[in-house]
Amino acid sequence: MREPLLLPPPATSKPTAMAILASLVVVVVALLLHFAASPISKPTYHDLFLSLSDNSTAARHLRALTLRPHVASSAADAAVAAYVLSALSALPAHSASYGVLLSFPVRRSLSLAPSPSAPAAPFDLVQEVYPGDPYAAAAAEAIPTFHAFAASGAVAGPVAYANYGRVEDFEALVSLGVNLTGAVVLARYGKIYRGDIVRNAQDAGAAATVIYTDAKDYGGGAAGKPFPEGPWMPPSGVQIGSTYRGLGDPTTPGWACATGAGDGDGGECERWSVAEVAASGLVPGIPSLPVSARDGEAIHRTIGGRMAPDEWQGEEGSPVYRLGPGPGILNLTYMGNETIATIQNVFAVIEGKEEPDRFVLLGNHRDAWTFGAVDPNSGTAALLELAQRLWKLQKRGWTPRRTIVLCSWDAEEYGLIGSTEWVEENREMLSSRAVAYLNVDSAVAGPGFYSYATPQLDELIIDASKKVQDPDNSSQTLYESWIGSGNSPTIGRLGGGGTDFAAFVQHVGVPSVDIAFGEGYPVYHSLYDDFMWMEKFGDPMFHRHVAAASIWGLVALRLADDEILPFDYVSYALELQESTREIQHDVLGTPVSFSPLFKSIRELKSAATEINAEKKALEREIWGIKLEKNPLKVRELNDRLMMAERAFTDREGLCGRQWYKHLIYGPSQHNDYGSKSFPGIDDAIDEAKKSNASESWRFVQHEVYRVARAVTRASLVLKGKFT
Amino acid sequence: MREPLLLPPPATSKPTAMAILASLVVVVVALLLHFAASPISKPTYHDLFLSLSDNSTAARHLRALTLRPHVASSAADAAVAAYVLSALSALPAHSASYGVLLSFPVRRSLSLAPSPSAPAAPFDLVQEVYPGDPYAAAAAEAIPTFHAFAASGAVAGPVAYANYGRVEDFEALVSLGVNLTGAVVLARYGKIYRGDIVRNAQDAGAAATVIYTDAKDYGGGAAGKPFPEGPWMPPSGVQIGSTYRGLGDPTTPGWACATGAGDGDGGECERWSVAEVAASGLVPGIPSLPVSARDGEAIHRTIGGRMAPDEWQGEEGSPVYRLGPGPGILNLTYMGNETIATIQNVFAVIEGKEEPDRFVLLGNHRDAWTFGAVDPNSGTAALLELAQRLWKLQKRGWTPRRTIVLCSWDAEEYGLIGSTEWVEENREMLSSRAVAYLNVDSAVAGPGFYSYATPQLDELIIDASKKVQDPDNSSQTLYESWIGSGNSPTIGRLGGGGTDFAAFVQHVGVPSVDIAFGEGYPVYHSLYDDFMWMEKFGDPMFHRHVAAASIWGLVALRLADDEILPFDYVSYALELQESTREIQHDVLGTPVSFSPLFKSIRELKSAATEINAEKKALEREIWGIKLEKNPLKVRELNDRLMMAERAFTDREGLCGRQWYKHLIYGPSQHNDYGSKSFPGIDDAIDEAKKSNASESWRFVQHEVYRVARAVTRASLVLKGKFT
Repeated sequence: MREPLLLPPPATSKPTAMAILASLVVVVVALLLHFAASPISKPTYHDLFLSLSDNSTAARHLRALTLRPHVASSAADAAVAAYVLSALSALPAHSASYGVLLSFPVRRSLSLAPSPSAPAAPFDLVQEVYPGDPYAAAAAEAIPTFHAFAASGAVAGPVAYANYGRVEDFEALVSLGVNLTGAVVLARYGKIYRGDIVRNAQDAGAAATVIYTDAKDYGGGAAGKPFPEGPWMPPSGVQIGSTYRGLGDPTTPGWACATGAGDGDGGECERWSVAEVAASGLVPGIPSLPVSARDGEAIHRTIGGRMAPDEWQGEEGSPVYRLGPGPGILNLTYMGNETIATIQNVFAVIEGKEEPDRFVLLGNHRDAWTFGAVDPNSGTAALLELAQRLWKLQKRGWTPRRTIVLCSWDAEEYGLIGSTEWVEENREMLSSRAVAYLNVDSAVAGPGFYSYATPQLDELIIDASKKVQDPDNSSQTLYESWIGSGNSPTIGRLGGGGTDFAAFVQHVGVPSVDIAFGEGYPVYHSLYDDFMWMEKFGDPMFHRHVAAASIWGLVALRLADDEILPFDYVSYALELQESTREIQHDVLGTPVSFSPLFKSIRELKSAATEINAEKKALEREIWGIKLEKNPLKVRELNDRLMMAERAFTDREGLCGRQWYKHLIYGPSQHNDYGSKSFPGIDDAIDEAKKSNASESWRFVQHEVYRVARAVTRASLVLKGKFT
Repeated sequence: MREPLLLPPPATSKPTAMAILASLVVVVVALLLHFAASPISKPTYHDLFLSLSDNSTAARHLRALTLRPHVASSAADAAVAAYVLSALSALPAHSASYGVLLSFPVRRSLSLAPSPSAPAAPFDLVQEVYPGDPYAAAAAEAIPTFHAFAASGAVAGPVAYANYGRVEDFEALVSLGVNLTGAVVLARYGKIYRGDIVRNAQDAGAAATVIYTDAKDYGGGAAGKPFPEGPWMPPSGVQIGSTYRGLGDPTTPGWACATGAGDGDGGECERWSVAEVAASGLVPGIPSLPVSARDGEAIHRTIGGRMAPDEWQGEEGSPVYRLGPGPGILNLTYMGNETIATIQNVFAVIEGKEEPDRFVLLGNHRDAWTFGAVDPNSGTAALLELAQRLWKLQKRGWTPRRTIVLCSWDAEEYGLIGSTEWVEENREMLSSRAVAYLNVDSAVAGPGFYSYATPQLDELIIDASKKVQDPDNSSQTLYESWIGSGNSPTIGRLGGGGTDFAAFVQHVGVPSVDIAFGEGYPVYHSLYDDFMWMEKFGDPMFHRHVAAASIWGLVALRLADDEILPFDYVSYALELQESTREIQHDVLGTPVSFSPLFKSIRELKSAATEINAEKKALEREIWGIKLEKNPLKVRELNDRLMMAERAFTDREGLCGRQWYKHLIYGPSQHNDYGSKSFPGIDDAIDEAKKSNASESWRFVQHEVYRVARAVTRASLVLKGKFT
């Protein structure tokens, strides 16, 4: 914990216009004060923010947040919401509730027979606590291991192995002649979203799926020690998770039902029935269960038939993996309860002084499958630590130019439900007022800084990283550790569907950022994602937590305080150019022309260069006298910068998945975790490659045109003059 | 022509901030100037605008604009564009071109046989000029009478009579046992859009349509004298027109191809082929021709069979109308040329001083089927007269707070093409910046003021009408003549598709107005819509032209100059309440509940009342000192007022006609001229009444919810605080 900088308090009163008129002397004083900088400048406040970092606060919050498992809508979740509300109350804070469809396990059983004639032995489907586990008692409250939204049913069938359950894995099985009809597919976790594994298995004719944690991916190899000795997944550890392939409450697709909006009260809120949800195809039509590495190995031992390809095998020492189906028979029973439950988003609001109607939103979810020390409460701890610093800035006289909103989302784990409902409800309001959304899910899963952003924010993140200290090496900045031995950092994009930025970026077109320390961690979504794991392995000193809070907060402060928004669309144009080259490469030899898209990107680059020059011209005025006199000119420029991202959305949305409005970034159709550039073009290429019909290549061309037009519309928003 | 007010010129220089600092004396002077009103206040400029009206200018412009027939893309149309460009050049002005699909007649013939065995006699399909017609020579340049976008083909078949060609007319024919398969349908003009007549006939199995002008509707009765003796349609007069049922260039649905955007230049612009357009169903699949009253009567004489119902008959003295089909046989040949042609929109821009990025747009189309003295160039003459007044205001020191844009659209007659292409191209830009769109098509067709608006503009129009003199009675205001003997004026809504506000309102959600003097006129779209007709019958003194320019301009000036936008959403809420009651009445006894919609309207009313109070509070500050210091507060309020209308649009659009995004106002599905409130609910009710399936009533309920959600989103935009 570093000592905070001591600064003089700000002047508490300013002369009024009436006073100006009353006395010539006061006039001069007033004018001098008026044209001079504030007693404490915004950059000084930003430095102060960095200096106020406090790792003990982050640690304290994380411990308090993770005392009990707190799955969405549980009493423990409500208690955590109350904790967050209280911790943010000084800013002040409030909460908003929604009735949404969640899914809970009612009955689960899984038994394995080595052959159809042999007796079946049941699995206990329990994650074991270890001797001395301080959370052993609380662990009893944890939700049983399950796949949320899996179909209810009882199924018995021969087991077949499908590797990571990707489209290409099932294609390989088909080409190897493995018939999956009626089989129970055993797949391993790791490459794609589990909902897509189940979907792919269902499409292949499987009767059920069992997804296990392979020691090869989560065990740390021969020397890897399982938790609590090491960071790796214990043999009984199970990754819980959702298999819903949509976003937001499945019963309110595209809209929201706030609690009190009339559930049962005159029918003021429309809802799909559970049957309609099932018919949508976004929830599995077959039962599914997750199992541990130990159970997965046991199942593998009963699979015969052709040997699986080398790259499908487990780590050394595990049994040889075969494809099946059979002779092992899995008998799986799952009964889930899909029911409307109440979830709560918590908001803290620091109203902007000059532009209260411009929002810089920071968001993190709060619900966890178990204790959630990494996912998501490392982010929550960082958010609360950051909030404490902002509150201290406020006490020293700081107020942001724009409104800062801290958001604590609920039910992310079920399908980004809390954030999506809120965005859907406030879509038009956000579309006119949201400057940026800054997401942090798991703030800390280990070392190494990772960042994802819409490209106009790249420079801002890089700038901020140069001011934050590397949490793992106090002699360098975060920027230096981030670039490592390279020349420039890698910034990912926001097409994936794995966390709460999705609705902001992909539904509304809000410039967004997502950051984290560490990428993946072995005890993900298991009982072992607890404070002990974090303290022992994830971030023993909690320096990564405060570094996350520092860069998150600094980016937010720049966005909230800079008179001219720190957006650079030249970066965007260059990124688009690069992505277009890549996708063009993918269809070489076809009739598809990317020249309309390249042309629109050139226009965007030119519009971006122009507005950058305008910014420069205006910035020269900031240090003179004129700017104070022309806040509307600043606002105009900022509005163009803010609204340009919206223009990348198309109202018709992606073909076949209309909710996705952004034409530049969206998830892969076959892996919700996979981020795609130009997802509509990508979908069309997929289809055209399958059919190779000239019509389907023309549809690819149509999608290229559609993106080109969106890029052109963004240029027209960036351009200042009426044309 | 009234004498303009003489006012002192404004101060030409103002003290700068540097000067303020240089001298205390100057400071005082500057402050006094700063806080005092400008030398000439905005309201004074608005009075000056009214006093500058000049009917001789309007008459001169109208004469010049209507020298030759000037159908879209013709040389004469280009000449008129050049004239408008030159007349507006002082503001200054520029033009923008698009390549769009237009339709031209290549071959037309129509002959009639009294029976299948009798010889056929051809019609000459020519509108006659009268002795002494000063436009006789120019009339030779007029486009032959035709229906734009009708299918090419040669058809012979028995004639059947279908009254006005409405859905209910064809239903009546079915119930009377009249078989239209293979028949040539004879329908009369007047109640619905001609494109819908042809569509209904096609749906009924007709092989072709002939649409005539019935003397009952356009002849003025027994005493009605045809032009040039009277205002009525001469016996040979034919209403030309489009039968395209879409909006904008049919080959670029939802987007635009600006000329130079790559037609044939690397394929930078996507276009549907003419075959794809035909497949869309938005252009007729059968041939069609318009004919005169005389030809219509001749055809009627050959129709036998059952007598038509009383209300289907013509005026006294005309032959008895029978239903057919036959024995008369019509032989119709039509060959059209659908081709990409270049059209031009002309824009004049007066850049706003304080908020150049907020647009108040005034629009009128310029292309005409023939001379276009009423439709549309009475509007063009008013626009140019208005422009001259604005230019005079500029010379006296006025600059608007917001940018004023005068738009002269091309190819409206073919399907609102010029305006729609421009709106589609600039959709996102307009969505962030357009304050309002004020349309005038035919400014003057006769006496009587008619107004249509999105309801937040009602009060503004009423206010403005109280300041404009009634052109037909100088002892009263326009408001007084408008309300007549009633208590309040009737303001129509903007759901119809007949003119250029459609894309602004129905595609983007821009608050809009449409005004006119006179409602309908007998020589509509015929050769006789010329300057003579206007001078003799439409507006002999051109006082109606200047009254149109006055109210149009005054509404624009208020929107451009008022610090706080003169929008009142309480009017909107009341109007919605009324419309909901009406549509509710339509489904009494069904399971549909309108309570969600009523609830959302109550929320809107409360949000509207709140923002009105905020406006009042701020307005109190305007006359004090504080307002000058907080332009961002004003801007914030205005942004909420401007953006609320956008929230009435839904990105998914109307079911089955996605281009229409506005859920409150849109055209009737069966009559493009018909304005509907809640068109999506209306469509669904239509369908449900037909099928009476419980599922279809549930879909009505879904549409009610959808509108309710849009209204709620509008409330959230109006509300100031973060919630």
